Amino acid sequence: MLKNPSHKYRPFPQINLPDRQWPSRIIDKAPRWLSTDLRDGNQSIIDPMDGVKKRRFFDLLVEVGVKEIEVGFPSAGATEFDFISGLVQSGAVPEDVTIQVLTQSREDLIRTSFESLRGARAAIVHLYNAVSPAWRDIVFRMSKDEVREIAMTGAKVMRDCAAAQPDTDWHFQYSPETFSTAEIDFSIEVCAAVMEVLQPTPDKPIILNLPATVEAATPNIYADQIEYFCKHLPNRESAVISLHTHNDRGTGVAAAELGLMAGADRVEGCLFGNGERTGNCCLVTMALNLYTQGVDPQLDFSDIDRVIETVEYCNDLPVHQRHPYGGELVFTAFSGSHQDAIKKGFEAHDMQNDELWRVPYLPIDPADLGRDYEAVIRVNSQSGKGGFAWVLEQDQGLKLPKKMQADFSRHVQHMADDIGRELNAADIWDAFKGAYHVDTQEQKFQLEDYEESRASDGTRLFAGKIAVDGGTQSVSGRGNGLISSVVTTLEDAFDLDLKVLDYTEHALGTGRDAKAAAYLMCQSGDRIIWGCGIDEDVATASVRAVLSAANSAVAD
Amino acid sequence: MLKNPSHKYRPFPQINLPDRQWPSRIIDKAPRWLSTDLRDGNQSIIDPMDGVKKRRFFDLLVEVGVKEIEVGFPSAGATEFDFISGLVQSGAVPEDVTIQVLTQSREDLIRTSFESLRGARAAIVHLYNAVSPAWRDIVFRMSKDEVREIAMTGAKVMRDCAAAQPDTDWHFQYSPETFSTAEIDFSIEVCAAVMEVLQPTPDKPIILNLPATVEAATPNIYADQIEYFCKHLPNRESAVISLHTHNDRGTGVAAAELGLMAGADRVEGCLFGNGERTGNCCLVTMALNLYTQGVDPQLDFSDIDRVIETVEYCNDLPVHQRHPYGGELVFTAFSGSHQDAIKKGFEAHDMQNDELWRVPYLPIDPADLGRDYEAVIRVNSQSGKGGFAWVLEQDQGLKLPKKMQADFSRHVQHMADDIGRELNAADIWDAFKGAYHVDTQEQKFQLEDYEESRASDGTRLFAGKIAVDGGTQSVSGRGNGLISSVVTTLEDAFDLDLKVLDYTEHALGTGRDAKAAAYLMCQSGDRIIWGCGIDEDVATASVRAVLSAANSAVAD
Repeated sequence: MLKNPSHKYRPFPQINLPDRQWPSRIIDKAPRWLSTDLRDGNQSIIDPMDGVKKRRFFDLLVEVGVKEIEVGFPSAGATEFDFISGLVQSGAVPEDVTIQVLTQSREDLIRTSFESLRGARAAIVHLYNAVSPAWRDIVFRMSKDEVREIAMTGAKVMRDCAAAQPDTDWHFQYSPETFSTAEIDFSIEVCAAVMEVLQPTPDKPIILNLPATVEAATPNIYADQIEYFCKHLPNRESAVISLHTHNDRGTGVAAAELGLMAGADRVEGCLFGNGERTGNCCLVTMALNLYTQGVDPQLDFSDIDRVIETVEYCNDLPVHQRHPYGGELVFTAFSGSHQDAIKKGFEAHDMQNDELWRVPYLPIDPADLGRDYEAVIRVNSQSGKGGFAWVLEQDQGLKLPKKMQADFSRHVQHMADDIGRELNAADIWDAFKGAYHVDTQEQKFQLEDYEESRASDGTRLFAGKIAVDGGTQSVSGRGNGLISSVVTTLEDAFDLDLKVLDYTEHALGTGRDAKAAAYLMCQSGDRIIWGCGIDEDVATASVRAVLSAANSAVAD
Repeated sequence: MLKNPSHKYRPFPQINLPDRQWPSRIIDKAPRWLSTDLRDGNQSIIDPMDGVKKRRFFDLLVEVGVKEIEVGFPSAGATEFDFISGLVQSGAVPEDVTIQVLTQSREDLIRTSFESLRGARAAIVHLYNAVSPAWRDIVFRMSKDEVREIAMTGAKVMRDCAAAQPDTDWHFQYSPETFSTAEIDFSIEVCAAVMEVLQPTPDKPIILNLPATVEAATPNIYADQIEYFCKHLPNRESAVISLHTHNDRGTGVAAAELGLMAGADRVEGCLFGNGERTGNCCLVTMALNLYTQGVDPQLDFSDIDRVIETVEYCNDLPVHQRHPYGGELVFTAFSGSHQDAIKKGFEAHDMQNDELWRVPYLPIDPADLGRDYEAVIRVNSQSGKGGFAWVLEQDQGLKLPKKMQADFSRHVQHMADDIGRELNAADIWDAFKGAYHVDTQEQKFQLEDYEESRASDGTRLFAGKIAVDGGTQSVSGRGNGLISSVVTTLEDAFDLDLKVLDYTEHALGTGRDAKAAAYLMCQSGDRIIWGCGIDEDVATASVRAVLSAANSAVAD
């Protein structure tokens, strides 16, 4: 086997487009969306959907706001026909939604397709035949004239079938399949011939859908093709130009975006990029990309987890962890510097006066997709102080002083290195309790009870019972304030060296169940140590913080 | 919650690039590749790799042919430092591979980074700081001058550290992080300031890596940024322009491709698009995209399944079924018309005189990635005759006549509709045996034994023992040839109506174990029926085919 058989392949030819316009354009409104989840999507999954799944997917698409839905290939078999016919008969199609069916250009198949739609208020019949040289030469062994003739013959049957069912508002769609690998002037010639038959008008346009059936070039080439097509198509104003990209080169979304800039009006695709082989253009990504450019996509993904759930159930294919917007990990940061920046971004966002979204590393507000902020930051050994502190604040309400965050992060990083897996909120809380001797029975000094009183000169007297090494010791001391009285007491009783450098305290929660958290930064010898106390009473929280610092002082 | 809060977001500004060149360019050679799987990739997975996994991934990258590998963030912790230092000390880095480490612009961190590389033959030290307004305002609260100063200070430390370890061939890389959302003139200003410090030359250039840290615009905007940057950077010939894209808008590969067209020299990314959030540009996709354009990517993915296995093991993340080139389903076709076209494409490819790849629906020869042809076509109820016939030919060697394929496809489709899951080769073989009464005990007529002789007038006499309804019947008849003698015999003995319309036979396998398969198309009343016989002997295969047709004639 050859290792780099690139000589087997030929570069895709460029398009002659001297006055190219699209690179200077922007997308400033939503295109018309067509979901082909029930057709291109369904035909490419291992176990095609049964009627129940198809209906569930259809209802989801309606809820999300898709107005044009390709529901299948009625001539492919009884399952397809019956589902489509049933959809029409059951009244499941809302007034503002138009269903679409696909048919090859054969008279019997076209007739079957119209038959499946009998009784529909409106429908799009989508005719296709492949026009590219590889298909002409290898699959059909037909000349260009014959290929054009197939399209025109099919269009005539469509026209006649539509006339025979006049109660339905018919729309016609034609796809020169394999458009992206065909000679573009021939594609235009075939489309113009189909338009000659169907006589579209600006008020009743034909949909010309231009598939990158197989993605074969960089996405700018597809945009060039679309711009060239729009420029040279006769009677352009009587056609809706539709894009249908695939993702063989990983650039299906890009091709559709650049194609819109190049003049197209409509995009076909699937939710989360299902579809033949590498899939179609992902409609979720396309739509939410508009979102973040200030453009209303006209689709609603505000509860994206529910959308994912249904799509995964119906397709029996996962949405990848890194899929834009929907993936489990896409609003997650493990890296410390990322976590820190995100934390600051949320804080700045809470303080600013407008809604404008400007949070580092998060291109979209997770809340706009129904995701929680809490899911944003996950912690492993690559994480930094920002991440740990964030989790602790979200989970326990503790707002560690900045310098304490750095101290705590060292503790957590050791823990993460040791256990070698992602840390959850409980792990981090355990690490905190262990590091600062909070709420555990393992510390050397434990507060059993205390009394404190204030003298008329403002000094305070502290008298407490401290459990030490299995016994209880009564201790007391005096200071300028509560904290210093406790510090002095412990220094004297246990021969400690504790110099208070900083102190903060904040409420934990609100109302009757509120607690207080106190943080104490001390110097002990040449070490900086931290203490934390939590209690229903603000004073007791401070006392506990001193005990916590004392425990840190005697710990390794 | 707002359903379409697009007003929270602002469109990305366009770049002033009046004489834009990149849309007319093509990619005609491979860029320099840098894998950041062990850094950007590793920092974004749930459970970061341990040393064993990192080493396994490193060795894979070397095997694949990556010449520049970012191995980590030495100052992030002991795990990172020790791995990098160990890699250097152990001699695991081949002569032609250069490792790279990332560091923030802080003196202690830079010094630690150089320390980790002590003893390396050559290395790239990669300095970064974020330059965009959101980061300046929210994360650092710094002015532009301060941000530029950070970069320059870091560059000076790099320069001095390098001078202190003169035995290593040092290369410098600088990333204006968040480049894609920064004011481009400011990015150029900072890069130029760093170049002033490091004094690169065309022979010893600096690598300037321009990250789309968060992908925030259509990919043409990134290309505009790269072209503008290349055009306006002083001393451009002393810089290697490197791309580092992310995939937040699903267009990370496209942005890197258009960025190459816009003048860049180098691409950073991960295998299968691992990396923060939505991941980095996928190096596999980028490389194989070049492949299919006739360009040698200088990377070897000829055994892609082994690459996938290692990547999935090390990252503990799956490669999605639809991931370009690597996904399980990307060389698969379930749709009948696709299967039919692929089958014809393979046939045409076998007959042509050159290697040029031109198979419908398959942008790349699966064999070039070490994949089997057999995996290409999978069968479900959406499949057509081409697909079933292909599987039967691959699995059993049977080459059904074209019209028989259509008959058989009806049988299989019923079966697929009934069982509602993908069919495997065994299902299809069962369906075939059932449909044509081959090798089963359930048929009405079964051949027990026969003799046949040829008269001097050329007519043939057939005398056989046929098991019917539990008994055995001796029957005989005469005809112009073997088949007609058997047909006549059965017609007379069992009151059948069988008119032979067509007959084909072919060898099954070669050599001593070869068998023969015979196919018989008959009219029986107004029905077209088919028979198939398989036997070691070509004559007996024909006799069995007639029996098979007779069984079809009496079946429903």
